[in-house]
Amino acid sequence: MTFEYDRDTALRPRGDGAYDADLAPGWLVGGGVNGGYLLAIIGNAVAAELGTAQPAKQHVDPFSVSAHYLSASTAGPAYVRTEVVRSGGRFSTVAATLLQDVDGTPVPRIAAHATFGNLDSAHDAKSDLEASALGLALEAPVLPPPEECLESRDAPPEVKKIAPLLDRFGTRFDPETAGWAVGEPSRRGVIQGWFKLADDRPLDPISLLMVVDALPPTTFDLGMPGWAPTLELTAHVRAKPAPGWAIVRHRTRTVAGGLFEEDCEVWDSTGTLVAQSRQLALQPRS
Amino acid sequence: MTFEYDRDTALRPRGDGAYDADLAPGWLVGGGVNGGYLLAIIGNAVAAELGTAQPAKQHVDPFSVSAHYLSASTAGPAYVRTEVVRSGGRFSTVAATLLQDVDGTPVPRIAAHATFGNLDSAHDAKSDLEASALGLALEAPVLPPPEECLESRDAPPEVKKIAPLLDRFGTRFDPETAGWAVGEPSRRGVIQGWFKLADDRPLDPISLLMVVDALPPTTFDLGMPGWAPTLELTAHVRAKPAPGWAIVRHRTRTVAGGLFEEDCEVWDSTGTLVAQSRQLALQPRS
Repeated sequence: MTFEYDRDTALRPRGDGAYDADLAPGWLVGGGVNGGYLLAIIGNAVAAELGTAQPAKQHVDPFSVSAHYLSASTAGPAYVRTEVVRSGGRFSTVAATLLQDVDGTPVPRIAAHATFGNLDSAHDAKSDLEASALGLALEAPVLPPPEECLESRDAPPEVKKIAPLLDRFGTRFDPETAGWAVGEPSRRGVIQGWFKLADDRPLDPISLLMVVDALPPTTFDLGMPGWAPTLELTAHVRAKPAPGWAIVRHRTRTVAGGLFEEDCEVWDSTGTLVAQSRQLALQPRS
Repeated sequence: MTFEYDRDTALRPRGDGAYDADLAPGWLVGGGVNGGYLLAIIGNAVAAELGTAQPAKQHVDPFSVSAHYLSASTAGPAYVRTEVVRSGGRFSTVAATLLQDVDGTPVPRIAAHATFGNLDSAHDAKSDLEASALGLALEAPVLPPPEECLESRDAPPEVKKIAPLLDRFGTRFDPETAGWAVGEPSRRGVIQGWFKLADDRPLDPISLLMVVDALPPTTFDLGMPGWAPTLELTAHVRAKPAPGWAIVRHRTRTVAGGLFEEDCEVWDSTGTLVAQSRQLALQPRS
């Protein structure tokens, strides 16, 4: 069987570092295509280009991907142009632009840089020992078991209407941070829960680029249920995710000047922090 | 008088979106030139290019700047190549690369994207009212008064030797997080203090790109006093800084896989959060 995520992020190499994609309508949200889904497509293109240009290096994993969202994508054909700007021993960096042709004119949707390496071999036993002795690792929140959480498919119709992508996920929201689903936002600016893909496709490093932007914006929890377009999002992948439920937390701590930052952390089923991201997004208009 | 920062970040337009700079030796640290200083130079180039390409828009302020550090810069001539990739109403985005010629070959040092706008006009009264009603704003830490803090110029010789840039700043470290200066790191992963430039040059939005990377790496506070090269740094400027002492906090929460993230927040003298950044850096080798 082919999982939805793999089907919808598949690429066709066009040559000269360009890759064709089809943005699937199942990932639409608000006024555009989900930004995390687009970031995973960019991640796939970067991995493909590095695999072609320097296969021996095995720089297959994203470490840091920063993306500036230039215009809203639409479902349909798109392509990613890549250019390797650093080919190092531990890390390589690629400039990647996602574009769509509109009336024959290429329109850039996302301008990104991606630094890739290998999560297995980028570190050594000595530094691991030193890090382990420090014991400094962000801990996952304690959540009720998944069966006591709210399923995203139970979201109210007005939410699902602007977010068909909710059906891609098996998210279970912590009831403590899901009051917005019944019109009672906590106004703390936190949304967290258990995460998996609806069809149980296992998570891998590149798919974490999608996970960090999979939950509704934290502004839902602030009583602002509108669309919150991302201006810029940077994701760090910190480790390979183990199989099973992941835990995802979104939080904002400052809404000001028409913008808010949204921090996201993802832990795997063993409690290891596997991804962190921060995005700067536009405060929804009421 | 000309302030050090203005003298050392000055640019000469070369045409075609390129700007010449001279990387001053006073900003050297560890194995290279301070990353925040380089980011401010990139910020100046972006502002100059947008001011030339679209003067009426007044997109003079950085909102988000993401930079992937490709190789270590050296003191001496450098240049920034810029390309406007989005020219919008509220925001414009520029791709910018800092390069140095080595034996006649252009070597990229930093690949960046910068989204600029206008901090005065990017928001409206209605969203300001809504944000104000939320009262959600990250609060500055409470510090002892500057005169009870440790001056960076009192840093031990082995620290100053690898960080001549300490003399650029008038940083006063909170004694609670400055034990590393006397060989007694707290091992909490936090370094915070009062910040100003040594010659009292007032802070402005672009200079905040320098401030977010001005303190020693938080790994100093973890008993790892070595060089911690930045892989990627993204800074968000949230407001114009008021005159007077700023407060800066650096913190890491996860050291793993040979890397650590370092979050930085900057508040101005009125307690307003004016900048946030996160960088992914290499765990120092002991």
